[in-house]
Parts: sequence; structure tokens; C-alpha cells
Amino acid sequence: MNIIKQAQFAKEASLKLATLPAKIRNKALMEIANSLKRHSNLILKANKKDVENAKKSMLKEALLKRLILDDNKIREMIEEIKSVARLKDPLGKTLSQVELDNELMLYQITCPIGVIGVIFESRPDAVPQISALCLKSGNAIILKGGSEAKNSNRVLFRLISEASQKNHIPKGAMQIIETREEVFRMLKLDQYINLIIPRGSNRFVKYVQEHTKIPVLGHSEGICHVFVDKDVNIKKAINICFDAKCQYPVVCNAMETMLVHKDFAKKFLPLMVDKFKRAKVEIRGDNKTRKIVKRLNKATEKDWSTEHNDLILSVKIVNNLNEAINHINKFGSKHTDAIVTENKKNAQIFMNLVDSASVMWNASTRFADGFRYGKGAEVGISTAKIHSRGPVGLEGLVIYKYKLIGKGNVVSSYIGKNARKFKHKIIKSLY
Amino acid sequence: MNIIKQAQFAKEASLKLATLPAKIRNKALMEIANSLKRHSNLILKANKKDVENAKKSMLKEALLKRLILDDNKIREMIEEIKSVARLKDPLGKTLSQVELDNELMLYQITCPIGVIGVIFESRPDAVPQISALCLKSGNAIILKGGSEAKNSNRVLFRLISEASQKNHIPKGAMQIIETREEVFRMLKLDQYINLIIPRGSNRFVKYVQEHTKIPVLGHSEGICHVFVDKDVNIKKAINICFDAKCQYPVVCNAMETMLVHKDFAKKFLPLMVDKFKRAKVEIRGDNKTRKIVKRLNKATEKDWSTEHNDLILSVKIVNNLNEAINHINKFGSKHTDAIVTENKKNAQIFMNLVDSASVMWNASTRFADGFRYGKGAEVGISTAKIHSRGPVGLEGLVIYKYKLIGKGNVVSSYIGKNARKFKHKIIKSLY
Repeated sequence: MNIIKQAQFAKEASLKLATLPAKIRNKALMEIANSLKRHSNLILKANKKDVENAKKSMLKEALLKRLILDDNKIREMIEEIKSVARLKDPLGKTLSQVELDNELMLYQITCPIGVIGVIFESRPDAVPQISALCLKSGNAIILKGGSEAKNSNRVLFRLISEASQKNHIPKGAMQIIETREEVFRMLKLDQYINLIIPRGSNRFVKYVQEHTKIPVLGHSEGICHVFVDKDVNIKKAINICFDAKCQYPVVCNAMETMLVHKDFAKKFLPLMVDKFKRAKVEIRGDNKTRKIVKRLNKATEKDWSTEHNDLILSVKIVNNLNEAINHINKFGSKHTDAIVTENKKNAQIFMNLVDSASVMWNASTRFADGFRYGKGAEVGISTAKIHSRGPVGLEGLVIYKYKLIGKGNVVSSYIGKNARKFKHKIIKSLY
Repeated sequence: MNIIKQAQFAKEASLKLATLPAKIRNKALMEIANSLKRHSNLILKANKKDVENAKKSMLKEALLKRLILDDNKIREMIEEIKSVARLKDPLGKTLSQVELDNELMLYQITCPIGVIGVIFESRPDAVPQISALCLKSGNAIILKGGSEAKNSNRVLFRLISEASQKNHIPKGAMQIIETREEVFRMLKLDQYINLIIPRGSNRFVKYVQEHTKIPVLGHSEGICHVFVDKDVNIKKAINICFDAKCQYPVVCNAMETMLVHKDFAKKFLPLMVDKFKRAKVEIRGDNKTRKIVKRLNKATEKDWSTEHNDLILSVKIVNNLNEAINHINKFGSKHTDAIVTENKKNAQIFMNLVDSASVMWNASTRFADGFRYGKGAEVGISTAKIHSRGPVGLEGLVIYKYKLIGKGNVVSSYIGKNARKFKHKIIKSLY
């Protein structure tokens, strides 16, 4: 089948899928979980093939690690699907209700987006994760996974779509594509596809944005900061900065730059740098930092705007809260930034002025994640500023429609000399 | 000043504007209204120049009508600004709140989008309308109006930005550009501009979507339908269809195609067509329609998917509700569609299955409008399916940020053998 036909089928299926009650969607999710459990040996076998191929083609260690599935990871997959099934239904909810006039009521009701194209990296566990979120939110999907995980993805996709179809999910609602050429052609199909979610490198996301009229839910780079203020509990500061950098350094919500208030730097930096060095973190400091802690590499202008995704940390000493905020707004990527302080006012100013999707006070940037935020899972992290921002769960996979119910009302009654006036009585408001 | 500098200033100003309290934003709006009132003679004088030029260059009658300002229109402008000032503040509202764990609270808080570029058509009243909505929602704007309204736009813009600056709105927050070249260059400035709202022809909107990486809030064509079911109050049906077609035929929410149930057609069509003909509407019917009412032009396949914006109406007889829904989903533009029926079940099926931004039961499609929906005004109507749909008011001009407040919490506590479990207790939910 070619991608145009697939997109057409997905569109048709999406209209049916949008009207299925939550009970059916949740039952299908539970059956998908059961099917993955029953056939975990199939999944592991296919994954073994992928891993062997990857080793032959010398895939990088970090990517290889993400590719490998084991019993534990499959158990996690299954748990995640079940937790999505247990989430509140995001569809058919009344966001607002306004009585425009007597017997003329306007409702704003949540509904699915339609057809979503998701392009993701090597992790095969993204297949059940994304499928579950899209099914729960009533959206049809077209999936394109990493080619390294081809065999794992195929088996997972087959199990998921078979279990869905057995449980009244329309047949076209899940589609898979495997080649780059299909991705390029998919980007042109704005008459069938409502949203593209590209996960991967910043360069890839930009390429997608440049080559499609379809809205893109962008998952760009993560240049995250922690600002250590002067009025600080030193133990908290060390724990948070260490967690933000070292707990899992290759991901987008890890800290890339640490900003330190000048009045706290002498006390804090020697201890902090020592702990980082023992964890093999390379520290690149500005001149002031290098006066306090000797023998550090120099941070260049480029470091402030680079996502290393590695055990490299840039450190800068700032004169005050404002300088920290300005640095973050200038060099950051609007992903996640934290302040460590005991000063409530400073925390509030920081959280209001830093223009990022997630802002944190006395907590590690690593919390910025769909599962940790209680969304069950995430389809991506958005650094854009429309539709959805930060970790994107079910709320980012729905939109609304307006339903207006009258008794024969016409606009001409509200025009001209004896025009009626609208009541606009708010029965329920979004905020 | 060039467009890059303007966009940079707008970005800087947007960060300050985002933190101004509602009181200041509302005061500025009231002062803008006062200033327009005080200087209405200046506005009228500039508008007269535009109108003279337009007449010389033989501008179409419909466009000329939109261009002309008079005392009445200026009064409406002023009233609209005041009504936006009176709307609830959309900023700083808590959309959801989740207790992730003891002393680790996540808030989802509304905030402005940032910098919005709006390109609009000849109506000069769009300047105060769009400025008011953006100021209320804390967004900086870059405005590009129709060149026919250049003089009117300049005066309006000057009055609005002067009144704003006098009332503590940061200087760069409102920018105006006047040439097409500046628009093209603006589309490349994704590092400063967060959203583009193009108003105008479908072709223009598509052009913008193809030439920018910035998200576009699309305001495309309006191919709106009214379906007249069989179990119908004939007076309601005639009133609604007449209003939907004739009350103001040049706009996007006017009816383009009327679908009629076969069991009601013989009774309904002769009366309805007669009323339309007296209003000089050209009727183009399918074969079945032309058997019931003689001497009608034939509707071609192309008519079903054309937005005439004129006194032309396509009419089709359908066998049942399903055929009507399928026709709308196939040929419509997902803008606004209505059903006239006394059958509640049919109405519900129609409103659930028709995949449009606004669906209406026993009301005219002409109600789909920001003012009528109680939004004060609108920045556009969106036929896209992310972020905002239908008439877009303040709710479409905000996004949210996540604020996480902890006591030193780190992610590593939730990993490994003795991992803590998240509570994920929902304190407030979006739905």
C-alpha cells in the first residue's frame, strides 16, 4: 500500500474513531497490553535481530542501549499502556459553555485532532507509548520508527493493531511506514494529516518544519539551566545540580549550564565541582569561575548555546537574579530551567520571567517528563509556544469543536434598528 | 527601522509585557479607547484619503465598503476595545495542578505566546481589534494591514501605540510594517516571532504556510453547509437557510451549499427557492433538485467545493443523514456547518460526526464569529485542528507554562531499587 492510500485510510478511520466511547478505547488498550504480555517472546526475538544488526553496523553505544529490549522493559511498556487506559478520558469534555441568548447555547467540547504522523528515533518502546496515547485520545496515527529498530517495531505494530481491530478500533486507524521516502511524501499530505510530531535531532525537526504545511509539534533541543541563588541551602543546591547533570546526561532535560550567584560562588563551587569531577563531568567555566576553582577549561560563547547531551557542564557566575534570567532567555532553548533559592520572591520572579515551558523552584530539571508530570507517557516535549508546551500528553492530542444549539435563531435578529442584544452569560469558563 | 530590528524589539518588549498585571493592561486599553474618541477627526481625515485613492484605482465595491470608516464605525471600534478591557484576564490562570509527591507541586499556568505577526486585509478596524486582543493577552504584535488602508492604519497605529506607551506598555510591543517585502522577511524570523496569523485569501494563507517555519494560525476558506432534515419546522428551516445565505453573503461563515433530505424536499424547496430568487440568489441544483424546481442551473462537481462568497447557492438532495454528513466531511472546509431538525438524535449524530470547528443545531452558520461567541472580538477564524479552532479570541492568544515547586527534590530518588513512587494526586484538572 502506498503512503497516500494509507493516509486516506487513516483519515477515514479517524472520523469513526473520534466517535467511539471511552469504554471501547480503554478496553482495546487493556487488550493491547495483554497481547504484548502473551507475545513477549516474539518481541524479544525480533529485537534480538535488530540488536545483532546494530552491532554489525557499529551503532553507537548510547543508541544501542536505547534499542535493547528485555523482560523488564516489556513489563514497563505494558504498565505504561495500562496507566494510559486508566487516565481520565480527554474527549467530549466541556471546556466552556456560554448562553449567547435565551435558547441559544454555545458549548466548547474536546475532540481528537484527527490524523497524526509521528516520526521517532531508535527506541522501540516508543511504538506502544505513542500508539496508546493516540488511541486513548481518539486519533489515527502514521508511525515511522528508527530503521535500526525495524524488526522490533514491526512486531510491536502488528500485535498492537491486531489487538485494536479485534476490539472495534477501525482498521485504518494505525499505519506504519518504514522508509525516508515515505516520510518526505507524508509531509506533503496536508489534506489528510493534521499534525506532525518529529522526534529526533534539532536539525531534523527544522527540516520537517521547512518542508511541510502541516502543523509541527516541535521537539527541539534542550539547553537547560540551573541558577543557584545566594540565599541557598547548600545541600539542596548540590543535590539538585548533580541530579540535573548526572542522573541521565544524554537527555534533553539534563542541565547544560549552571549559573551561580557571585555571593554564593566561593562557598559552593569548590564542593560542587569536586562532586562533578568525581562523576567525570568536564567543567567549562567563565573567567570568574576559573578564579575560584583552578585548572578548569574555559567556556566559550558557543558553549552557552550548545546542547552537549554529555558529561560536559558550562558554569557561569552572575551578579544577580536579573543577569541569570537574561542569560537563560538569551541562550536557553525555552525547555526547562530551575532556580535553587530559599528566597520566595526571587523564585517567583524567576518563574514568571524565564520564558520556558517548564520553570522549577528547588527541584531538578530532570522532572520535566510526561510520566513524572502524571500524564502516563508523552508523545514528545514541545518547545514551541502554541497548542502544547513542555511534556505533551493527552491534553496535546485533543482540540475542541464549538457546538451551538438554538431554536431557529438567525443573525439578522441581532442587526439593525431593533436588534436584540446578546446575553453572553458564562455558564462555564475555561479558566 | 528594519524588520529584523523591529522583531528584536518586539521580542524584548514581549518579555516585559508578559509580566504586567491585568490592571495596567486594562487601563491602557481604556486609554486607547479614549484616545481614538478624542482623535476621531484625525482618523476620518486619513480614511478619506484612502477612500479617494481607492476610488481612483477602481477598487472593487465590496472592498471599498470595508475600507470606509464613519462615526458609527469608530464608535463600534471604541466599544469593542472597551469590551475587550472588560473581559476576564486570560493570563496567570491555573489550568491544572498536580501534587507529584509530598512537597512537589506542579502548576500549569497560562501565559502569553510572545510575538505575533498579523497580516490582514483592507478593513482598518482590524488594527484596534487585533491590537486590543494582543495587548489584553500580553502579546507583542507586528501588524501589516492592507495597502489600500495605509493612511487610516498609520493614524490608528500611532494613536494606539502612543496611548499604550503613556500607560506603561513597553515601547517595542507594537510594531507596524507596510510592504510585502517586509512580510516575506518577517516569515524567516522564527527566532523572534512565535505565531503568524494571515488573514486573507486561501491562496495567501497557503503561501504563508509554505514559506515559514513559524506556526501559522490558518484562516482558510469557508465552505459552510446547512442540512435540512426531514423532521423539520419549515418556518425555522426557511429562516435559518435564508439568514445563512443572505444576511451577509461575502463572508466566510455564509452558507455555500444547502443539503435537503429527500422526504422533505418537495414541500420545502419550492418555497425556499422562491424566497431566494426574490433576494436575487442564483440557485445551482443537482439533478434531483432540478426535477422539483424547474429552470435552475446545474450544480457541477466543482460547485460543491467552491467558496463563492456571493449570491450563489448550490443545492443537493440527499437520501439520509449519513449522506449529508459524508458530503460535508468530503467537500466542506471544516469551518461551520448546521443541521435543521426537530429530531434530537439526528442533531447529536450530526454534531458529533461532522468534523468542523463549529457545528450548529437549529441556528444560522452566521453565528460563528468572535463577537457573537462572546469573545469580544476575534483575531481570525481557524480551520486548523491544533491550538485554536473556529473564531479565535483571547483563548487562542495564550499558552501555558509549567511551574514545579519542590523542596530540593531530585529525580534519582525515583529510580532504582528503593525508588519512591509518585503520588500524582490531581488537585485541579483541565477538564
